[in-house]
Amino acid sequence: MPSYPPAIQDLVKGLSRLPGIGEKSALRMVLHLLDMPEDHVMELGQNLLDLRRRIGLCSVCCTLTEKQPCAVCSDPGRDESVVCVVETPADLMALERSGCYRGRYHVLHGALSPLDNVGPDKLKIAELIHRLKHDGIREIILATNPTPQGEATASHLLDLLQEFPVSVSRIGFGLPVGGDLKYADALTLKRSLDGRKHLQSGHAQV
Amino acid sequence: MPSYPPAIQDLVKGLSRLPGIGEKSALRMVLHLLDMPEDHVMELGQNLLDLRRRIGLCSVCCTLTEKQPCAVCSDPGRDESVVCVVETPADLMALERSGCYRGRYHVLHGALSPLDNVGPDKLKIAELIHRLKHDGIREIILATNPTPQGEATASHLLDLLQEFPVSVSRIGFGLPVGGDLKYADALTLKRSLDGRKHLQSGHAQV
Repeated sequence: MPSYPPAIQDLVKGLSRLPGIGEKSALRMVLHLLDMPEDHVMELGQNLLDLRRRIGLCSVCCTLTEKQPCAVCSDPGRDESVVCVVETPADLMALERSGCYRGRYHVLHGALSPLDNVGPDKLKIAELIHRLKHDGIREIILATNPTPQGEATASHLLDLLQEFPVSVSRIGFGLPVGGDLKYADALTLKRSLDGRKHLQSGHAQV
Repeated sequence: MPSYPPAIQDLVKGLSRLPGIGEKSALRMVLHLLDMPEDHVMELGQNLLDLRRRIGLCSVCCTLTEKQPCAVCSDPGRDESVVCVVETPADLMALERSGCYRGRYHVLHGALSPLDNVGPDKLKIAELIHRLKHDGIREIILATNPTPQGEATASHLLDLLQEFPVSVSRIGFGLPVGGDLKYADALTLKRSLDGRKHLQSGHAQV
């Protein structure tokens, strides 16, 4: 069986470990890399080698950062008494992009998932408890995802938070803006009905 | 506007230069790289840095190789008097996988394409002429693709080859095996009819 030279095969193997990349697309990438300007390839390789050295977790909120503490935790304009708990740095970025939140964050780096062997000790929960004890936090917003794992995590945190004098809320769930009732799944509709907002009292109660 | 740390952004920029990778999938890859075992990431970075150093073009046929000459050119079991001319190393690999060819190759590294500024000087044509003058080649098979660029290249090579005492052929085109007449495009059908093989003479010629 004919095959590409080992240097190409090694790189194909490495690239196909990445999400969404199979062997065929990895090979297409490598052949493209051989046609690219050499300095682009060198830069890419060097950036890969540097990634782990440059990126660490924020000592306060555990998000990915290059400086300590991260940009949000070191911003004096952010309300440090409110902490929004998210599963991943990407969730934090989504909230930041919305521009509608001015408090701080805490990144758990995952959600409870017994089937995947992710228990509370695998998440940054001890770090959150430490902040609750020392940082004067008044409010916690649980913004884990509306998945079984995210819900289990929120409920586990709610148990832990009972011994602290903080107000705790869970983000709202329901139909997304621009969504359409007829295409929504049953669970979303259930959450949407459960989370309905009262607008006007009926005559019976006047 | 919030943004990921520079180390992440640099890598996203580098990865999104690869074919089929947009910014979103590049970001997904980088976040995955941060979760991967560190030695896998280091290996990938090092393999990228090594790629260009380890891979060069075969001094004979111009395919990608780590040793000189390449595996095909250094195989004494291959017929060196027959040379199959292909556009890319990937085309060579496809023919090798088929296992039906026992001659040598010549890789042009592209096809003539005036719109993309690819003229004859950008292709490995001089190297082919050099081989024709020195390597005792008796037969050339033009296996460039059935595209306007591939056809133009084949026809340009045919002109150049007229001054050499070699037999020249073009690979056959038509319906692919397992293909279906009713789904074939008009050009494929035309090539299929033009390339029909005579099986039996009519009575008139008996």
